Amino acid sequence: RVNADRLWDSLMDMAKIGPGIAGGNNRQTLTDSDAEGRRLFQAWCDDAGLTMGVDTMGNMFMTRAGTDPDALPVYVGSHLDTQPTGGKYDGVLGVLSGLEVVRSLNDLGIQTKHPIVVTNWTNEEGARFAPAMLASGVFAGVHTQDYAYGRKDPEGKTFGDELKRIGWVGDEEVGARRMHAYFEYHIEQGPILEAEKKDIGVVTHCQGLWWLEFTLTGREAHTGSTPMAMRVNAGLAMSRILEMVQTVAMENQPGAVGGVGQVFFSPNSRNVLPGKVVFTVDIRSPDQKKLDGMRARIEAEAPAICEALGVGCSVEAVGHFDPITFDPTLVATVRKAAEDLGYSHMNIISGAGHDACWAAKVAPATMIMCPCVGGLSHNEAEDISKEWAAAGADVLLHAVIETAGI
Amino acid sequence: RVNADRLWDSLMDMAKIGPGIAGGNNRQTLTDSDAEGRRLFQAWCDDAGLTMGVDTMGNMFMTRAGTDPDALPVYVGSHLDTQPTGGKYDGVLGVLSGLEVVRSLNDLGIQTKHPIVVTNWTNEEGARFAPAMLASGVFAGVHTQDYAYGRKDPEGKTFGDELKRIGWVGDEEVGARRMHAYFEYHIEQGPILEAEKKDIGVVTHCQGLWWLEFTLTGREAHTGSTPMAMRVNAGLAMSRILEMVQTVAMENQPGAVGGVGQVFFSPNSRNVLPGKVVFTVDIRSPDQKKLDGMRARIEAEAPAICEALGVGCSVEAVGHFDPITFDPTLVATVRKAAEDLGYSHMNIISGAGHDACWAAKVAPATMIMCPCVGGLSHNEAEDISKEWAAAGADVLLHAVIETAGI
Ligand SMILES: NC(=O)NCCC(=O)O
Ligand SMILES: NC(=O)NCCC(=O)O
Repeated sequence: RVNADRLWDSLMDMAKIGPGIAGGNNRQTLTDSDAEGRRLFQAWCDDAGLTMGVDTMGNMFMTRAGTDPDALPVYVGSHLDTQPTGGKYDGVLGVLSGLEVVRSLNDLGIQTKHPIVVTNWTNEEGARFAPAMLASGVFAGVHTQDYAYGRKDPEGKTFGDELKRIGWVGDEEVGARRMHAYFEYHIEQGPILEAEKKDIGVVTHCQGLWWLEFTLTGREAHTGSTPMAMRVNAGLAMSRILEMVQTVAMENQPGAVGGVGQVFFSPNSRNVLPGKVVFTVDIRSPDQKKLDGMRARIEAEAPAICEALGVGCSVEAVGHFDPITFDPTLVATVRKAAEDLGYSHMNIISGAGHDACWAAKVAPATMIMCPCVGGLSHNEAEDISKEWAAAGADVLLHAVIETAGI
Repeated sequence: RVNADRLWDSLMDMAKIGPGIAGGNNRQTLTDSDAEGRRLFQAWCDDAGLTMGVDTMGNMFMTRAGTDPDALPVYVGSHLDTQPTGGKYDGVLGVLSGLEVVRSLNDLGIQTKHPIVVTNWTNEEGARFAPAMLASGVFAGVHTQDYAYGRKDPEGKTFGDELKRIGWVGDEEVGARRMHAYFEYHIEQGPILEAEKKDIGVVTHCQGLWWLEFTLTGREAHTGSTPMAMRVNAGLAMSRILEMVQTVAMENQPGAVGGVGQVFFSPNSRNVLPGKVVFTVDIRSPDQKKLDGMRARIEAEAPAICEALGVGCSVEAVGHFDPITFDPTLVATVRKAAEDLGYSHMNIISGAGHDACWAAKVAPATMIMCPCVGGLSHNEAEDISKEWAAAGADVLLHAVIETAGI
């Protein structure tokens, strides 16, 4: 078993970097805090005897050598970046549990046949630069590096410039590495494991996603002296689309979600009807037909809603992945590890997207989940217990040993 | 008649300060551009032989002496601040036409019995610091100066600190001045005069207003892994309230408006359901019963909308004035001036709020309006012609001479 206290202490130490305003973290990707978090992780990896490789997307690969010089590494990873008001565990648990696996192997003097590489993927959250899982996406060949470098945050700064600014452009070609297997351990971010009182989620699938970005064009006008009949009200159109997205999601129950997280009114002045409203829609389902059906319906209904108000409507898909099926052999390995360790477990479908979704394109991949309190995530109040954290790390340790061979 | 070219040139010169991004202006109150605009206006007033007084709210009073030492001044004013994406005429036309009246009197060698004071009121727009007409409101005793100094912009900077920072805290006690009469000349900001092909709006009333600020509290949660049934979606509640405000306004036709100009999602990340949404509602009517009825209905229905979603709802009234009736004698003076000058005219109710609304609390007051293209205002494309501008300034000149006496 892993050292639960050491894992917990590392989690708490990392959480000191980029503190939030309510007990969580604001360590968004490619900020100074992100750089600081990377340096702490690097120092820990140095102490554990790992050697570092960094690619041109800033992905960090910390290698523990294997005994077989020809064997491809087993990768264990997740991300250290957070939402602007994020929790202490989303992503971080996976990276630091990877480190804890290595530390435990060191303690036990266990050498594996395959090397083990603990990975920190850049910009998993997608909060600052859409889409999410950007750097693992480039690694897997889903996006080009040029596309990624050109992505802009809401202030107009590009991913490429910001990566350079924080000093984490590495020299490795992205995606040049080959993986024997990829494991990602993550908090569930949903309510199921807690409700079902299970220690471990054996993740068989991940639901698919579409991120749509709407730009509505109305006419900026005075809120007082512009008669109702003369208004070209982009804000009203946005409201109606938001309600429509809710309806579409509800009509696809069970097994679908839809919502709006980001809204920008322009000029955003209280006595000006907005001339422009930009907002994002996030729809997901594990069912490919539902997922694509929801997208099609939203893209069909939104223009009609806008037209009725004279509002211009354009929509761009800024993030997408199809539902993922994880590697059955690795899934079975995780299930057996939980079984052997005596942890209660159940199969689960990931509601969130993860770097594992892209890794699955280029290698056998799977995930392990632990419960989180109230299913709450992307919230500073995100919470897990030390025991929950350690259980998943134990399963990770066993699954990695099984896959890397001794 | 005034010098139309000189008035137009001054308007164009002022518009060079704080340029917008689309041909208009961004000269928001208490910014460096506001300070620069004030200095230009001050220099012009110096040249015209006016003496400056500034009060502790930064209101500028530029006095042309009268012949009767005991006579109270006739005030002519408006504001030089703009919306973030404002036009070149909203407010500025009134201030610079006041200056043009004085310049014309100088040219003609006319002395008036009552002094004439050209006034620039601080923070009329209310875009940066709510409510609008803040400094004229303190002048009229509607707000205390402490209240005004404590108002915050969206970045949390206070009115008091910013007034000090730009160096325009004067030494006069606010509201100590007494007025013989107050005139304000303004673009209509609505479509009526242009549609009716009238040169001049004789402003008999101003519609009343309520500005409500809603704070909705949901639960920040992951857009992907949070099931629909578990969501406490403050954004959805906002959408429903926005639609309800639209319905309330439509059901109070004719003679009412309602809309939402400002929305802040928090944390405003595309994969986070908003934990907090702050937004503003602007409702207006010239009919006191409708105005208060709309407010009551919105404040009654919004909590029910929120409750159905489990969302917390609080509302604060951050701006208000009752419908205003302007001084009948001054209104008749304006009408007669338009008549004498041969300008077509009609009675009109102001759709926007103006400093004249607060001046009317402490002195006989009225307004003059000219048309604006397409009724468009609070938009950088706001437009008027040189002839339209000059016609209203001519009426202002005659009305001021009539009221100030020669
Ligand atoms: N795990 C996680 O929150 N990833 C961010 C991408 C997503 O929104 O699913
Ligand atoms: N005239 C004008 O636009 N004033 C700003 C206050 C309001 O919104 O009516």
